[in-house]
Formats: sequence, structure tokens, C-alpha cells
Amino acid sequence: MDSIEQLISLFERFPGIGPRQAQRFVQFLLRSSPSLRREFVEAVQSLGGSVRQCPQCMRFSSTSAKVCSMCSNPQRDPKFLAVVASDSDIAALERGGTYRGYYFVLGGTVSLASEKTNGLRIKQLLDSIPARLKAGLVEVILAFPANPEGDATAIQVREAILKNHQGDALMLTALGRGLSTGSELEYADPETIKSALESRR
Amino acid sequence: MDSIEQLISLFERFPGIGPRQAQRFVQFLLRSSPSLRREFVEAVQSLGGSVRQCPQCMRFSSTSAKVCSMCSNPQRDPKFLAVVASDSDIAALERGGTYRGYYFVLGGTVSLASEKTNGLRIKQLLDSIPARLKAGLVEVILAFPANPEGDATAIQVREAILKNHQGDALMLTALGRGLSTGSELEYADPETIKSALESRR
Amino acid sequence: MDSIEQLISLFERFPGIGPRQAQRFVQFLLRSSPSLRREFVEAVQSLGGSVRQCPQCMRFSSTSAKVCSMCSNPQRDPKFLAVVASDSDIAALERGGTYRGYYFVLGGTVSLASEKTNGLRIKQLLDSIPARLKAGLVEVILAFPANPEGDATAIQVREAILKNHQGDALMLTALGRGLSTGSELEYADPETIKSALESRR
Amino acid sequence: MDSIEQLISLFERFPGIGPRQAQRFVQFLLRSSPSLRREFVEAVQSLGGSVRQCPQCMRFSSTSAKVCSMCSNPQRDPKFLAVVASDSDIAALERGGTYRGYYFVLGGTVSLASEKTNGLRIKQLLDSIPARLKAGLVEVILAFPANPEGDATAIQVREAILKNHQGDALMLTALGRGLSTGSELEYADPETIKSALESRR
Repeated sequence: MDSIEQLISLFERFPGIGPRQAQRFVQFLLRSSPSLRREFVEAVQSLGGSVRQCPQCMRFSSTSAKVCSMCSNPQRDPKFLAVVASDSDIAALERGGTYRGYYFVLGGTVSLASEKTNGLRIKQLLDSIPARLKAGLVEVILAFPANPEGDATAIQVREAILKNHQGDALMLTALGRGLSTGSELEYADPETIKSALESRR
Repeated sequence: MDSIEQLISLFERFPGIGPRQAQRFVQFLLRSSPSLRREFVEAVQSLGGSVRQCPQCMRFSSTSAKVCSMCSNPQRDPKFLAVVASDSDIAALERGGTYRGYYFVLGGTVSLASEKTNGLRIKQLLDSIPARLKAGLVEVILAFPANPEGDATAIQVREAILKNHQGDALMLTALGRGLSTGSELEYADPETIKSALESRR
Repeated sequence: MDSIEQLISLFERFPGIGPRQAQRFVQFLLRSSPSLRREFVEAVQSLGGSVRQCPQCMRFSSTSAKVCSMCSNPQRDPKFLAVVASDSDIAALERGGTYRGYYFVLGGTVSLASEKTNGLRIKQLLDSIPARLKAGLVEVILAFPANPEGDATAIQVREAILKNHQGDALMLTALGRGLSTGSELEYADPETIKSALESRR
Repeated sequence: MDSIEQLISLFERFPGIGPRQAQRFVQFLLRSSPSLRREFVEAVQSLGGSVRQCPQCMRFSSTSAKVCSMCSNPQRDPKFLAVVASDSDIAALERGGTYRGYYFVLGGTVSLASEKTNGLRIKQLLDSIPARLKAGLVEVILAFPANPEGDATAIQVREAILKNHQGDALMLTALGRGLSTGSELEYADPETIKSALESRR
């Protein structure tokens, strides 16, 4: 296999990329300047170097400090901890513009086929809670997607926390369900209608 | 214009129907049995006869009684009145399975271009409230779509009711916003994320 | 079932119409003027009266004459007969703007599950050919969709005609395959590429 | 800008990639094994090394030989030369399974805004034709997309070749137009219908 075909087959392993887009990526790189290709190679190489997983929130970031810039930010509110499935959900919550608490990246959602929590960092989350309680934590927000996997994950995380912190004054909440921006009643599913009625105000 | 072309052009005036689907409808009717066509004609004709608008909720229904079967149903809860834009929103709320109150069909939403409430039955809604209060009404739920037109309509209806019932113990609520079923955080708009955080529980 | 629900369930039998669009159609008719509803009813009723199937091409049209306006048009070229699956394919070929021959509507395509030609008017087509040959017919164009059902139909019609007209100077052709307007090579399937190469010129 | 953000912004320059997919690619690489990242880096680096453009067909391939494996393949038929817009169109024609001639990659299509042929290798194509004629070339197939840009490119290439080879017995053809696999007549545009009728057989 020559290097073009090898790179195509590597791009095919990227999420959501099929053979044609993989081929287009390689054509794009072939037509790019050597300096852009060099920049690209260096950026990929530096992922293995400067990038590391923050030991507190578990997200990836490139920093020489021990913890990431968010976890070390004293402006964030220690009363709140949002548990999310993946790094990109942090960006989504930040776009909302109102959340000022800390984050913890669980690393995925429960697979419904297996109901297993393999690979999810539930233990690390539990281990981090005592220190967070001391720092003022009062509410853990389970910010998972509004789908069966997200619901199953919320149930498992909730149970695990409740078992460990039965006596503690720790509130466990989930993101509210209802009509998303743009929703028309006519096209809303019964579950969303039900939630929208329950959370009316 | 022959009768096939005339019927095609009439179907083209139906909501969401273009020339090709209009043609397909006519082909469908041409291939149908004469008895199905007769049944269809009779059903359309009866819209002009037995169908009328309920004077209480303003929805269309076919009944010989004065008010529709929903408004005359003593099992419904008079404490709640859901104000909706159109007849089909009633079906959507009923699909939710939890709402047991009454309805009022406003007949549309405010047009953002004009900000006018022409054609909306705000006056009829206001006129119906005193009798509903006597019957036990405590909450008016503004159940409009989660879009700018729905929001503008809610503002106008809210103001009109507040002006008329300042002293009355009448609660005004709106359907809750948040993640709809199936939403992933990553694709949610900032407004929905904000609402989902506010309405967490 | 009241007349609104009955009309909704009738509209649900229309091709491509689900419960929500059926409901919207009924709301549209409810809000329409009585005169539009009357016009609509009359157009549907006239399908059973003035509309009939042309005994030559088998398409539906409303005329008091024996054969349809196309089959009785002396400007059409008797050398060509296009055999199509349905009435709407006639409109498609006419939009092309170059075909001046006659048509025959077969009434569908072969079902691949059954390989049966039930309901297809192959016998009527065969019966019509002798008179068409006398009138100057030299080419039968099999104008079926470019899919497996269309291909299977072409095979059956071709065989039936060949069996009956082995000695006759009758040409049997099919619509050309190749790149459709807008096609890019990259997204074209191998069969289309192959046809485009074969029919190059 | 840290290395994660830098790599995201580099991926955003890839064709068809927006900020979210760029972020997902970086997450994918972060979660990948160091050996996969190394393999990836080496494949990109080798594009600048072993890969070069074939001086005959102008496509990119990785070879130490002077010309690419296709141009040096004596099994290919020198009677035919397919002129294509880009490298990926070669793959498309090969998928057809019937073309055995040689290729020439023009490097794009004419931009309709400018009608300019800047960057297209029309001169290199012309320069290559005398040697190809000596080797037996009889037909140049203009294999461009079936869109206005492709048509404009075909016109320009055709004119350039005709001007240079007026006396030569060189056939100039284009890929056939017609119904693509899966096309139904009802949805085909008039131009495609017209071509399908013209190229019937």
C-alpha cells in the first residue's frame, strides 16, 4: 500500500468519514503548501506532548500546569459541578453563557446494549466529591443528552453518588426537559410535551 | 381547463402540496372506487353542515350540541386553561397524556412583520375568563410554539390578561423550555442550554 | 366517528399523507370559504362523470370525445410510440420538449417480489400495435424508470412484443442511461459510469 | 492558542469540515494510541516525500518510478484518453469497470464567474497529444461533471484541441447524458429527459 492509500485508510478511521471524504482530505493535503503540512504534522505531534488530561475534570487540554485552566480558575463557582459525557459538552454548556460552576467529564454514556459502565469514570467522580464538598459543592448537575443512553447514565451516576453520600447535603439535579428553541407543539413528541407541561412557569 | 387540471390546481392550494403531489392525488382519486370518491365528497360536504366552531374553545368539531365534547366534559379540570395557537396543538397536548384542563384556540400567532394581533381571538379569550374564574380557573397556560412568533404572542396575551385581571388570583404560566427528547448538548442552541440549566431539577 | 375524523382518515389514504398532514388538510378545508369547498366537491364528483380512460393510450382525461386529445392529435408523429408506466410519466416526457410521438400507459411496473405482470396492460398494448403499424409505427420506446422494476418491466414488454412481431420491421428502444443533469462523476454509481461511457458521443 | 485549538483550526480548513467535526477529529486523535498518531504523522510527512505528480497524467501517486503505475501499464489501451477534472474522477471511471484507456487530470473545471481557465492544464494536455497520437490515440473522451462548469470546460478543451489538430483523425467525445441509475421519469429534469430520448437505443 502506498502512502496515499495508507493516509486515506487512516482518515477513514476518523469519526464520520467515509472513503470519498478521506480521499478528498488527502487530495487537499497534496495540494497544500509544504508549510501547511508541516504545521499540521507539528500540531498532531504536540497532542502527544503538551496535551494532557486534567486530573480534576478529566478533559484534555494543553497546559504545563498541573490542572486545566478551568479547574484552576478561582472565578468559577465551587457550589456547582456539571457532570457531562464528553469534552465537547463543556463547550455547549459554556455557550449557554450562564453556568459558572466546575465540570467533570465522565468519558461517555452507558451503552444500552450492555448496561455496562465500563470506561466511564464513575469511580474518579466519586473520589473527587469529598474534596469538592469541602470546597463548597452543593449541587451536582447531571448534564447528559436527552436520549435513552443519557437517561441510563444519569440513573447510574445518581445511584452511585447517593450510595456514597446519603447523609451529605448534596443536591442532584438534571438538565430540564421541554420545548427546544424552534419547537412547534404539533411536532413535539409526547414525552417533550409532558416535560414542557411539568416545567411550565 | 378540464376537470382533472382543475382538481390538480385545487389540490395545489392545500398546505404543503406542489404540482406533482397534486397530480398524484388526482391519479389516486381516478383509480379509486366510485364509492370511496362518494364517501370523500360526502365527508367534505358535511364540513359545511355538521361541523361548527365550539363557542367556548373555538375549535372546529362536528356535533349537534351547543358546545364541543371537550368543553362539555365534566371530567376535565376547570382549574386549568391552555391557550393554544391552533386546533392541532390541542391534539399535541393531549398526546402528552397528562393535561386534564380546558383549551382555548387563539387562531394563530402574532405575525412578527406586523406585530398585529388581527384575527387572533384575544377579546373572546378575555370575555370567557370571568365565567371560567367562577368555575374554578386558577392557571392560564400559554402553550405557544418555542419560536419568536410564539414568544410575541405570549407577551401580548399575558399583557391583555394582566390588564383585565390585575386583582384576580390568576396564575399565568408558559410551557417549559429545555432539551427536547433526543437532543444532544453539542447541537443544542445557547438559548435551549440556558433554559435547560434554569429548569433543572 | 365524526365527519372531521372521517375526512382525516380518508386523507390518510392519499399517497404520501400521514395523520398530521391529513389533519392540516381538514383544517385548511374548514377555514376555506364554502364556495371553494363547493368547487372542490364538484371537481371530485366530475372525475366520476366527464373523466374517462382513453381507449388508445389508457391515460385518464376529461373529454366527451372517444379518444383523448393527444391520441386524436394529427400533429403527433405515428412513427413513435412511448410506453410509460403511469400518466405522470407522459407529463415528464412532454417537459423534455422534443418527443412528438404517441404514448401508451402500461399502468405500473413489474413487482420484483412476484415478477408478475398482473394489472399491467401488456395485452392491450399488443392489441394496439397492428393498427399503429398500419399508421406508420416504426419504433416503440420503452420509457420506464432507471431502476430494477423498470428494467424488469422493459424485459417483459420487449419479449411480449418480439414474440408477436418477429417478422415486422419494428424497432424496440429504451431511454438512454448516463449522467443526469447535475451528476458529478465522483458520486455516480458504476452502472451509470458504464452507461455514460457506452453512450458517449 | 494552545495546540488543541490550533489543530482544530487546521482541521476546519479541510474540505467540508466545520468547527464541531474539527473538534471531534481532535478528540479522536487525543483518545487514539500514540502509535496510531505516529503512523498518521508519518503518512502525512511522506506525502511531501515519496508522493509526486505523474508528468504524464498529472495525478498524484507515490512511486519512485518516473511515471505512475497507470501511465506505465502496457495493458491500458492507447487508443483512448479520458480527460478528467480531478484525481478522484479517475477512481470513479475505474469503478465503472469498462474503461481501459489512459487518463489526463486537468486540475479542475472552468469557473463560470470568470470563464477563465487559469490553473487548468490545457497547455500540458495539448503538449502531450502528439506523442499519444503516435502511440495510437484515436479518441479523447471529455469526462467532466454534467453541470454548467463541466460543460464550459468541455467547450474550452474541445476548442483548444480542434485548433491544434484540425487535420488529425482525432475523435472528440463526451460522456453520455441520460437517466442515472435510480432515476424516475417524473422527477427527471427536462434536459435529462431530452438526453435520455436522444441517446435511446
